[in-house]
Amino acid sequence: MLKSARITVSRVQSGVKSVRQTDEVATEEPLEIRVDTRPVSVTMRTPGHDEELAAGFLLAEGLITSQREISRIAPQSRNDMGNVLDVFLAPGRTLDFAQLTRHVFASSSCGLCGKATIAAVHQHFKPVKSSWTVSAKTLLGLPEKLHLAQETFSRTGGLHAAAVFTREAELVVLREDVGRHNAVDKVLGHGLLGGLLPFDRHILMVSGRASFEILQKALAARIAVVAAISAPSSLAVQFAKKSRQTLAGFVRGDRMNIYSRVERVLNR
Amino acid sequence: MLKSARITVSRVQSGVKSVRQTDEVATEEPLEIRVDTRPVSVTMRTPGHDEELAAGFLLAEGLITSQREISRIAPQSRNDMGNVLDVFLAPGRTLDFAQLTRHVFASSSCGLCGKATIAAVHQHFKPVKSSWTVSAKTLLGLPEKLHLAQETFSRTGGLHAAAVFTREAELVVLREDVGRHNAVDKVLGHGLLGGLLPFDRHILMVSGRASFEILQKALAARIAVVAAISAPSSLAVQFAKKSRQTLAGFVRGDRMNIYSRVERVLNR
Repeated sequence: MLKSARITVSRVQSGVKSVRQTDEVATEEPLEIRVDTRPVSVTMRTPGHDEELAAGFLLAEGLITSQREISRIAPQSRNDMGNVLDVFLAPGRTLDFAQLTRHVFASSSCGLCGKATIAAVHQHFKPVKSSWTVSAKTLLGLPEKLHLAQETFSRTGGLHAAAVFTREAELVVLREDVGRHNAVDKVLGHGLLGGLLPFDRHILMVSGRASFEILQKALAARIAVVAAISAPSSLAVQFAKKSRQTLAGFVRGDRMNIYSRVERVLNR
Repeated sequence: MLKSARITVSRVQSGVKSVRQTDEVATEEPLEIRVDTRPVSVTMRTPGHDEELAAGFLLAEGLITSQREISRIAPQSRNDMGNVLDVFLAPGRTLDFAQLTRHVFASSSCGLCGKATIAAVHQHFKPVKSSWTVSAKTLLGLPEKLHLAQETFSRTGGLHAAAVFTREAELVVLREDVGRHNAVDKVLGHGLLGGLLPFDRHILMVSGRASFEILQKALAARIAVVAAISAPSSLAVQFAKKSRQTLAGFVRGDRMNIYSRVERVLNR
């Protein structure tokens, strides 16, 4: 399946006769992820790099930590749309399926709140420790690199992008998806399946906003610097601070906002 | 709790000394929805109008259809953050809790795909039947009305907005949230709790993109016209066609794209 689909659209302009034309929209299709034939997730995603999506999802959920735990990932042959993906674990490996049903947010005894949510994540993924620095110039140059590397966005306007860069601003991997969490899962999965993890000298750049979920997934891959074109949420800022991650938002032109760990950013 | 939180930010500009300032970001906090004390959902949302969020969520999931099925909605007193919400059903009412765990996407025997997903939704929510029309001028005027009515976005840049308008472009309700699905649930819940449903002479306007999920939620409230500032996905277009909904995208300035049921839009 393709990342975009051709459709017919009526272009309407006030006071002008409408025109019917062909156009492209971002593809959105369901994907079921199964582990040892047991369904663990259904997500609406843009087809492509589904193996990475599955691997990244399992990593971010804290269910697997390395590619050695996976024996094989393959589309289920009975679904000819490629919308069901089987992950087979390495011999002797098992998942804690109970963890899937027990939601991480509910694991605090002191009540449901942002602080307890962060504490629950940190029980599984420790805060980053690295103290490397990155230049402001490097971070400010990432949006253009992201844009140049995006394939489908300019045609459909409908895809989120996530990319991992080295701290020297070399692109490691970029993925696009209708779901921002899927785009991030795909870049993490690329790292996991390629044996590139941890991403502990790397920067995650996302095309839109930075939510709690984005920062949490970054932490699962040990990413210490997250940059977003648009705004962060309050919980993303809190999470980044507690996780010792640098969070940059509104990275546009020659300016950006740094919401946490600004000492990692050298302005020179 | 507030829809935005004050934080301290370092404003970095290339080659200029950084400045620390206070700024606002959109609040993101978890909300657990319980029905008759049983947890049914945890979502990351922007606090405010949580009763509407819960009611809209239950409507869109096909679990309730009118406000008469709800006896009371109240924050659980043991959570002093207001992050746990109890929905108590009217006497004699029960939910089909099995439906919550059985995912709608998985209910097709012919395999997981967009088409089967749409068919599964239509088993519960029939396509709209109304044949009313709306002028292109009305639709093209909605983005400005949406923007004028938005409270928090201009300050934080971090919130999605969803609004319901009459076909005469009168604003019925507007809600903002870090999650676009939450913003839509809130406007639906406002309709349900206020006895305003069905919204069968109404337009749903969203500030961002239109995904399958947005169209599905609109259908649950019988909304026949959905307009988005940005792009639709392929499955949103397919769903709108099969549900006889008009879907407008890229509604900007004096132009827009109509992806389905263009005959409902009169260009005069």
